[in-house]
Amino acid sequence: MIRAGVFGGAGYAGLDLVEILATHPQVDLAFATSNSFAGEPVPRTCLRYTPSSEVSLQDVDVIFLALPHKASAAEARKAVDANVRVVDLSADLRLDTPAAYERAYRTPHPHPELLPTPYGLPEINRAEIRGADRVATPGCYPTTTLLGLYPLLRFGALAPDAPIIVDAKSGVTGAGRKPSMTTHFAEVYGNLIPYKTGRSHRHVGEIDQETQKVCSELGPLIFCPHLLPVDRGLMTSIYVSLNGSMKSDQVHDAFDEIYGGEALVEVLPLGAQATLKHAVKTNKCVISITPVPDRFAHITSVTDNLRKGAASQAVQNMNLMFGLEETLGLI
Amino acid sequence: MIRAGVFGGAGYAGLDLVEILATHPQVDLAFATSNSFAGEPVPRTCLRYTPSSEVSLQDVDVIFLALPHKASAAEARKAVDANVRVVDLSADLRLDTPAAYERAYRTPHPHPELLPTPYGLPEINRAEIRGADRVATPGCYPTTTLLGLYPLLRFGALAPDAPIIVDAKSGVTGAGRKPSMTTHFAEVYGNLIPYKTGRSHRHVGEIDQETQKVCSELGPLIFCPHLLPVDRGLMTSIYVSLNGSMKSDQVHDAFDEIYGGEALVEVLPLGAQATLKHAVKTNKCVISITPVPDRFAHITSVTDNLRKGAASQAVQNMNLMFGLEETLGLI
Amino acid sequence: MIRAGVFGGAGYAGLDLVEILATHPQVDLAFATSNSFAGEPVPRTCLRYTPSSEVSLQDVDVIFLALPHKASAAEARKAVDANVRVVDLSADLRLDTPAAYERAYRTPHPHPELLPTPYGLPEINRAEIRGADRVATPGCYPTTTLLGLYPLLRFGALAPDAPIIVDAKSGVTGAGRKPSMTTHFAEVYGNLIPYKTGRSHRHVGEIDQETQKVCSELGPLIFCPHLLPVDRGLMTSIYVSLNGSMKSDQVHDAFDEIYGGEALVEVLPLGAQATLKHAVKTNKCVISITPVPDRFAHITSVTDNLRKGAASQAVQNMNLMFGLEETLGLI
Amino acid sequence: MIRAGVFGGAGYAGLDLVEILATHPQVDLAFATSNSFAGEPVPRTCLRYTPSSEVSLQDVDVIFLALPHKASAAEARKAVDANVRVVDLSADLRLDTPAAYERAYRTPHPHPELLPTPYGLPEINRAEIRGADRVATPGCYPTTTLLGLYPLLRFGALAPDAPIIVDAKSGVTGAGRKPSMTTHFAEVYGNLIPYKTGRSHRHVGEIDQETQKVCSELGPLIFCPHLLPVDRGLMTSIYVSLNGSMKSDQVHDAFDEIYGGEALVEVLPLGAQATLKHAVKTNKCVISITPVPDRFAHITSVTDNLRKGAASQAVQNMNLMFGLEETLGLI
Repeated sequence: MIRAGVFGGAGYAGLDLVEILATHPQVDLAFATSNSFAGEPVPRTCLRYTPSSEVSLQDVDVIFLALPHKASAAEARKAVDANVRVVDLSADLRLDTPAAYERAYRTPHPHPELLPTPYGLPEINRAEIRGADRVATPGCYPTTTLLGLYPLLRFGALAPDAPIIVDAKSGVTGAGRKPSMTTHFAEVYGNLIPYKTGRSHRHVGEIDQETQKVCSELGPLIFCPHLLPVDRGLMTSIYVSLNGSMKSDQVHDAFDEIYGGEALVEVLPLGAQATLKHAVKTNKCVISITPVPDRFAHITSVTDNLRKGAASQAVQNMNLMFGLEETLGLI
Repeated sequence: MIRAGVFGGAGYAGLDLVEILATHPQVDLAFATSNSFAGEPVPRTCLRYTPSSEVSLQDVDVIFLALPHKASAAEARKAVDANVRVVDLSADLRLDTPAAYERAYRTPHPHPELLPTPYGLPEINRAEIRGADRVATPGCYPTTTLLGLYPLLRFGALAPDAPIIVDAKSGVTGAGRKPSMTTHFAEVYGNLIPYKTGRSHRHVGEIDQETQKVCSELGPLIFCPHLLPVDRGLMTSIYVSLNGSMKSDQVHDAFDEIYGGEALVEVLPLGAQATLKHAVKTNKCVISITPVPDRFAHITSVTDNLRKGAASQAVQNMNLMFGLEETLGLI
Repeated sequence: MIRAGVFGGAGYAGLDLVEILATHPQVDLAFATSNSFAGEPVPRTCLRYTPSSEVSLQDVDVIFLALPHKASAAEARKAVDANVRVVDLSADLRLDTPAAYERAYRTPHPHPELLPTPYGLPEINRAEIRGADRVATPGCYPTTTLLGLYPLLRFGALAPDAPIIVDAKSGVTGAGRKPSMTTHFAEVYGNLIPYKTGRSHRHVGEIDQETQKVCSELGPLIFCPHLLPVDRGLMTSIYVSLNGSMKSDQVHDAFDEIYGGEALVEVLPLGAQATLKHAVKTNKCVISITPVPDRFAHITSVTDNLRKGAASQAVQNMNLMFGLEETLGLI
Repeated sequence: MIRAGVFGGAGYAGLDLVEILATHPQVDLAFATSNSFAGEPVPRTCLRYTPSSEVSLQDVDVIFLALPHKASAAEARKAVDANVRVVDLSADLRLDTPAAYERAYRTPHPHPELLPTPYGLPEINRAEIRGADRVATPGCYPTTTLLGLYPLLRFGALAPDAPIIVDAKSGVTGAGRKPSMTTHFAEVYGNLIPYKTGRSHRHVGEIDQETQKVCSELGPLIFCPHLLPVDRGLMTSIYVSLNGSMKSDQVHDAFDEIYGGEALVEVLPLGAQATLKHAVKTNKCVISITPVPDRFAHITSVTDNLRKGAASQAVQNMNLMFGLEETLGLI
């Protein structure tokens, strides 16, 4: 059995993580930390939340970090030193260089020696994750966007001079559990709110980094997230121009080919549309494709932002790191 | 023209107050205060929010206080001293004695000399409000409950040994605009949350005070509010036992008789049910009655918690205080 | 392995039933019928929906009937004749006499010889269900109400001359999957709608029948259901007067005593409030109690209307009928 | 006073139309038809719904047609013959040729002699509407899209070889009041549903027709509507490539220039984002612009689908047809 600890176990991603780990057949959940909820029961377990200062790394083989950025890197550093494996859900280990981190987060990286860390998107980067000591699990926007683009990147099918348009919509849990005007019920209810439009969202650099590893000739990413009046679920609507090496009506086959063997990515048949409910409370990414003859395609990629966009992908990474069946506890 | 100022103009009740006053034919809105939003535009007006420390009472004939309790009494005191009329929307002036206030709010009343103040529920207390210098506008729970009980109190129809059951449901704006875990979208969405059950809600004492002025022989009020996953609207479901002086099938006539001349209380025909949407974004209280033969009745009373439960009732009071048509600017 | 078939497998209760049976360790799901969705995949299984006319009772040991009333009795009749066990989720077998059925449903009972059938509320009626050939699973309103009242009935604690007030709130799936104005998104959104108030709801007779089996001296039930703008979850808010044999502050102990050994009923500690989310997507009934000194109590009882209020309770009954662990596949 | 009649007065657009006309200072509402609601009160008026067969065109100067396509053209024909002016809200008069209609609606046009009819988007086509006898009011998707593109079309700023991407999101009232699985509360709640993607939506041809009247050199429109879990409001997120005659940072000025004098189009300052709530229950289109250096722009255009996307725009057209102030009764 793998002894696991969760830092930030009372946030929304942390709660889903605890729920998944509590029934994982190869995991003993040793602790879940929360400073605000210290002493209260951890849902679906017999544990109570512990302040992060009171847990011992000697009790665990792996820790999951569902913490704010900077706080996460500090715990990762300690775990690495203690030979405890790390599945980080924060942004701290996702960018390959301290410079890229500083550009996106406007603060020096607290532990630049931890970079680069394997990028934990198994369907794209499985080989590097397998057996790794630490993995940076990408968040909901990059995961859902990258899975919706990856087959086209692999086939080098995108026109290099046309932008990649990503119109994204996220449920409110994506904004975290800390109360704010942004997450006030009466502000969100009946509303739809674009934010961090253009190329200003922090995750644009991370998406750029990963797309360019697969294909360096790409037009600019234009990314617009929206806050959706639902609790969970994330949809990216991706609009691309093809470069002529592939026609619109070949795009669906490309996705089938790349994802045919994947248990946690589902490509819907042509004509069906991926909706939020296809993915909510599942551990999958669900994708549908609309060819627009003859040089364009519209791809809809959907995840549960707290599952394949966070907690279940973190467990998928843990499975790979420990040499377990990749989908253990997830299907 | 009446020159009016609004304290707390960026809260939810304050916003509705500004909206109503902005189109009231006899009102000039002189200012709206907000410390958090100071400098930002006041919606539907040409004003900008002013910090409360920077407004002058010389600019106004009346102030509306949509402030937290205690803060409200302090401003009321200053206005009374400056011969400016006061429509208070807080709880500070609603209870008749300092002792009752201290019981409910667990703090001494900051200005006990202001008590008692006329209770601003026009359909019940019109005579005292007319021409008054200051009025305490009741909140959404007391308004909706009292209007749903009043005809039965007036006719002395309730059994004195049976409880009055009030199962209440409120939209989230009733909890105010300040972010908190209680109002976090993801906590409220898909949920229904009872709170302050039994007789523990602060407004129970206020409702008791007002019912007993009309009829002293009453069973205990049992009151259970619930937080409803909608932004606005308030429903009280009232269950009563009759004392035999009136049969179940006479209850509807009693309501018709008492409210027949009221412009802002609508009694639905027998068989129809008052729903939240009957009242939302209106200035009315809407009531439906189900007789339960032959000694019981179920009354559904509905308001918009920010209108007849707050802002529009405040303006109704202002109209009476200044000798205007009571419904001016409201229908 | 028990071979099971589901009639009405594309309705909301049917969908949850299929979901539960698909992972039940002792069940092989043989078919799920749907006339409207015939040929389409049955979610979470490898089956496709079959028209009800095309299934064979020889393929199954038990059938679940998630059908409209009258249609259900006809299938039950056939199954009984074929020695196939029946878990009925409709209202057809819940009332003990044809006369009671005709009163509630205004139509003669199609198969009066099937009455009475054991009433499938295991926490109250376990002995009769165990080993039975057919069981009538109660719906969401009776289940949630009866579980919220049962300990007080068992202790004979209710005042016989005071009404039992049940203010109930149900998610929209309770109204079925067939489109209607009642379930139109734009009619329900932002609304709260009381209906079938007083004693006019069809389930009042059923609740009366079952309460009186436990305690014959009871005041009248006054029952008001409301349509809540959420998809699933059901809350009954129950207000009772005690007869003096038990004080308000003893009520919580009574619930603890009766439900202490129950896996699927959870009594919250005093002070905590049962919310809709406590039960949604679980198989439990969750109860909280507010004593109102010294003769009254307010009980909040919550279920998922499609689970403990329908599908999971049906499986709980099946487990008992076949001599399995009662909670197999449910916790 | 203009005597007006509304056909289809109980649909969602019809209800908003009645609400606006009921307070319009120059309109007497003579009738509102509804076959399903015949005899029931027309909200906010003293009228009752009349079956469409029982109204007389002699009672009115103008009719509003909020009817399904084909039904609308038949009533328009009669009104034209009776010298009654027509504001059509259906699609029947929007396309300029019978051939275009047949392509989009897969049925011959019932009254081809009525084509072309002036296209009722006042901010673009004011001159043709003024004084016209009949006007085709565009629906919510074309209105919101065209207003979000128009300044760029006027300035000839779009790259002719790049697609115009429109990712649209609509509240459920856009799907009409007739119950269907599409509008069932439990299917929409918590969901987000793309439909008629690519170029398959009926309104694509209409949008193409109108954009090409302003600028003939344009890339293809790629249009993806989504059903949003709210009752009203419509957002189009428009992504365009510029042709070099205008830089990204000049786009906002272009919008300010074109819409500077418009009362019912509001261009937000740079940096602000148009949200659904900016437009809901208003008669305006609200637009925000994100320049994406240096050849791209992202435009968010928002309306209330039942107001500027239907009813209030119809009244705006009526005002122009009768020589009244264009915004009479609308601001």
